[in-house]
Amino acid sequence: MNRDIIRELDPLFNPASVAHIGATNNRNKWGFSTVTSLIHSFKGPIYPVNTKESEIQGLTVYPRVTDIPGPVDLAVFTIPAEHVAGVMRDCMKKGVKSAVIISAGFAEIGPEGKRLQDEVLAIARSGNIRFIGPNCMGYWSSSSSLAAFMMPLLVRDGPLAFVSQGGNVGAAVVVAGYERGVGFTHYVSCGCAADVQIEDYIDYFGKDTRVKAIMTYIEGLNDGARFMDIVSEVTRNKPVIVLKPGKTAAAAEAIRSHSGAMAGSDAVYDAAFKKMGAMRVDSPEEMLDVAIGCLTQPLPRGRNVAIITPGGSYGVLCAEACEEGGLNVVKLPEKTIEEFNNIFPPRWSHANPVDPAGDRNFVAYLTAPARLLELETVDSLIFMGFGGFTLFGNLLLQQRSSQEQKMSPEDLAKRDGALRAIIPIIEDIKSGNVYKTETAIKQLIDMLAWVLGLQGKMEVEDLAVTIIAARFSGKIDDLLVDDLLELASGKAFQSKTGRSRLDIINNMIVRLMRALSSQWIESYGKPVITTTFTEEQVKLAGNHYDYTSGNRAARVLLKLTGYHDYLVRCGVIVQESNRSSD
Amino acid sequence: MNRDIIRELDPLFNPASVAHIGATNNRNKWGFSTVTSLIHSFKGPIYPVNTKESEIQGLTVYPRVTDIPGPVDLAVFTIPAEHVAGVMRDCMKKGVKSAVIISAGFAEIGPEGKRLQDEVLAIARSGNIRFIGPNCMGYWSSSSSLAAFMMPLLVRDGPLAFVSQGGNVGAAVVVAGYERGVGFTHYVSCGCAADVQIEDYIDYFGKDTRVKAIMTYIEGLNDGARFMDIVSEVTRNKPVIVLKPGKTAAAAEAIRSHSGAMAGSDAVYDAAFKKMGAMRVDSPEEMLDVAIGCLTQPLPRGRNVAIITPGGSYGVLCAEACEEGGLNVVKLPEKTIEEFNNIFPPRWSHANPVDPAGDRNFVAYLTAPARLLELETVDSLIFMGFGGFTLFGNLLLQQRSSQEQKMSPEDLAKRDGALRAIIPIIEDIKSGNVYKTETAIKQLIDMLAWVLGLQGKMEVEDLAVTIIAARFSGKIDDLLVDDLLELASGKAFQSKTGRSRLDIINNMIVRLMRALSSQWIESYGKPVITTTFTEEQVKLAGNHYDYTSGNRAARVLLKLTGYHDYLVRCGVIVQESNRSSD
Repeated sequence: MNRDIIRELDPLFNPASVAHIGATNNRNKWGFSTVTSLIHSFKGPIYPVNTKESEIQGLTVYPRVTDIPGPVDLAVFTIPAEHVAGVMRDCMKKGVKSAVIISAGFAEIGPEGKRLQDEVLAIARSGNIRFIGPNCMGYWSSSSSLAAFMMPLLVRDGPLAFVSQGGNVGAAVVVAGYERGVGFTHYVSCGCAADVQIEDYIDYFGKDTRVKAIMTYIEGLNDGARFMDIVSEVTRNKPVIVLKPGKTAAAAEAIRSHSGAMAGSDAVYDAAFKKMGAMRVDSPEEMLDVAIGCLTQPLPRGRNVAIITPGGSYGVLCAEACEEGGLNVVKLPEKTIEEFNNIFPPRWSHANPVDPAGDRNFVAYLTAPARLLELETVDSLIFMGFGGFTLFGNLLLQQRSSQEQKMSPEDLAKRDGALRAIIPIIEDIKSGNVYKTETAIKQLIDMLAWVLGLQGKMEVEDLAVTIIAARFSGKIDDLLVDDLLELASGKAFQSKTGRSRLDIINNMIVRLMRALSSQWIESYGKPVITTTFTEEQVKLAGNHYDYTSGNRAARVLLKLTGYHDYLVRCGVIVQESNRSSD
Repeated sequence: MNRDIIRELDPLFNPASVAHIGATNNRNKWGFSTVTSLIHSFKGPIYPVNTKESEIQGLTVYPRVTDIPGPVDLAVFTIPAEHVAGVMRDCMKKGVKSAVIISAGFAEIGPEGKRLQDEVLAIARSGNIRFIGPNCMGYWSSSSSLAAFMMPLLVRDGPLAFVSQGGNVGAAVVVAGYERGVGFTHYVSCGCAADVQIEDYIDYFGKDTRVKAIMTYIEGLNDGARFMDIVSEVTRNKPVIVLKPGKTAAAAEAIRSHSGAMAGSDAVYDAAFKKMGAMRVDSPEEMLDVAIGCLTQPLPRGRNVAIITPGGSYGVLCAEACEEGGLNVVKLPEKTIEEFNNIFPPRWSHANPVDPAGDRNFVAYLTAPARLLELETVDSLIFMGFGGFTLFGNLLLQQRSSQEQKMSPEDLAKRDGALRAIIPIIEDIKSGNVYKTETAIKQLIDMLAWVLGLQGKMEVEDLAVTIIAARFSGKIDDLLVDDLLELASGKAFQSKTGRSRLDIINNMIVRLMRALSSQWIESYGKPVITTTFTEEQVKLAGNHYDYTSGNRAARVLLKLTGYHDYLVRCGVIVQESNRSSD
């Protein structure tokens, strides 16, 4: 492991200039969408290379790489396979430092393609050019804002790194990440991986301090032993999540015709992943769930999970999913049951999952998570959120609509005036000016009472204080305050940003839950996974699912527990001998 | 089975008037949200009953049920458990025909509650009052537009019927159905099911011709044998989908404290469900997936599935999910491979999954499904859609944005003028006036070329003709044409309805795929399940998933195949002896 992988791959991930061989104005060719992707991402010089065209989207075209005036750090290939070797020789002459070969028609099509690939590899090696591909969809590097990709990709900058042997599965995961608000330092579609291997990328990602978790989709490996050596080293420092199909004959056959890889024995792969501490997942969705878990959650120290739910049947399904996934739905101590007897109505579940059975006292409900997390026998919490609040949004909107229909224009104007009076208060809170004053809090409480349709003084006050406390501790983002502002402005049901009030309320609740859960995570050092009413809101948050997806929450906790156990076995984490001392 | 279940339960599902015992203006009580739900759904007279209030949301309040002037068909209870029996006696005196007891605190809390429940049941029986509950969240009946529910529910009218022993899981599924565009004739949260049993509702749904598929969430049954008799009868006529947790100890314990039911032996339940032809599912998501499958797909006659994919790795994951789910990823005959050799580039996969490996000829791609469906060895198809088109949306928007930035105001006006010229043509197509004329088709083609950024004449022409053909056959909804219209209007990137052009293009593609798949389903009598790039679009369509959810598609096909096999075993479907004769 003494290779200087950073030095070797840096030209690929931090090029100062790019030549695109095969750039074109012909919209029916991939060269068109690839050059468009380059133009819309990369800020340095881009040199299109094409013998038949002279200008592409405002850029001067060069007939050959050797005709380009300035230095070229990276060459992007989208020309037919049979022409790649020749141009690679030009690249060598030009002193190009790295390349990505998007072109297909190499090892994946059989012996003839393999011969071509070997030829290209030999030329590149002699010119000291490291390359991605061939037969790939390209890559993204956030440090140089470079999407050398087959088409513009919806990608965010962020702390994940991902190398995928499937360009399409990779792109789907990157876009799903975009929709869920997480981003990537690097995403590489590695294709046939003729030169740089999957384990090389993982090695590089392991050494980049911006990378917090590494993901990989593998169809087959060229050198399993080398992969294992490198990944075993990396997992000691950061998590590696692996999706590896090939359990069934049809999948193995599909892999052979897709990437030309040998799927290999699934049992061997599975044992190897366990040995090297990689978290193996079963689907692209789970890969992203676990990656987000790595970013947002501490590692659970054991399998004991507590569940708190606003609905009994959610609790039933979640408990089942946890147990089926290998977690332990832990028994509550008598002391905790007595505590809950004091704050919940007699009909509460008296057990884990903790279900207040429709109680409307949200303050009691909000204090329950801390009481569970402080138990030494609880390693993690699934907090199933506020069913009521979300549905109340709907209730409130319907009711308010009827009210507004009945109100005179004068009354409406009066009410809107009163609501607008709250705006400067919230703006002050937002700017950090007056949020400590009693008036501000009182007015915010009135506004919340209006927004949430609650009258019970205690509930509303406590909720307002919670929100303000969250803001004090920096645990709530400005968007929540923006939403309050928008709601308080008392505009009609469709806001100026095109969102309905119901959407705003739902989004507020998700953000509020995220703020609360990150406070609990910080206070207790244990994972807290949250859920709400519908899938719609999942996009906004990290480990946040809909009520009926207890199975996803359970699987994230299980994978993280497995990784924790691995790090303890390796001695990277020193497990306290007596848990009660913690 | 000679009971007249229709006559017995009709007063519940078709009441002409409703009394709500426990209606209130106090927002911190469920009686407030329940009466709001009634007011916003039911069109007939609503009589709030409360000894302490005189007016609720504009309605006159009566101190007792017996004070109500008109007849009462249904009584809704949200008062504390200990008062239910007394008021039920009033209902008997008043001649109330049916009831729903939302109130909790009955059998689920133990012997004391069970005694109360038995008392209420005895009174209701003596008054011939059938009732839902107690300890439930209420119900929805589309025939009387009645949501006697704990809070306003987002529910659509539609052909599904659902009885759930979990009110929260039930509500989550109903709302998920709302978001995915499917609705319910009936949704019942049955709670403790003291009087009307789960199997009674299923019996009733079985006899209602509007109901096309029945769903049920069960925690435990009061009379398993009776359930089996009734459900075995119903499944001969329409599908029954069952979600039954209780496989693990934690779930069984959670069930006991939630509904008071005994979870029972899971193996016994599982064997019984198989015997009665009910489709057992593992999650609320799968329940809805399979229900939508029942509404949109013919039953597959066997386990042989063909897959066509725009991306090799999607195909790999989908093939694996199919095989793991018990489907057979069928081998293609030589004849078909030769046909595909003629239309796809040499690099295509040459096998099932059929992967044209990045070919840009969408016409060839669109003809492939029919070639697979016409094979007698293929029982169903998973069509993984157009990766390119969706991503092209992004490509196009980025490119167009740059173009527009560079265009002079005059050029922009000129282009917008040209685009507006297409509007009347599309409006004519929409109204059915001129869609046969060559001009209309030619202009639509030009517009599509603009929208999809394609230049190859053949691709665009064929796509336009496909859309027009779909419209001819009535297989495309007006919304698709509306979207074309909105795009053609050439407005800025945020349209007047608040949707981005990218959203519009994505939605168009989903609808186009639904139109095409319903044509294939009709022509070949075989299921066709589709996928597209992101989850966002799933909401719009029926059995339509994101690319990486091959497992969901596979499970739907598997469940439907199992139901088909059951109907063959029962003799309801007579299987052709020689499949090639079909």
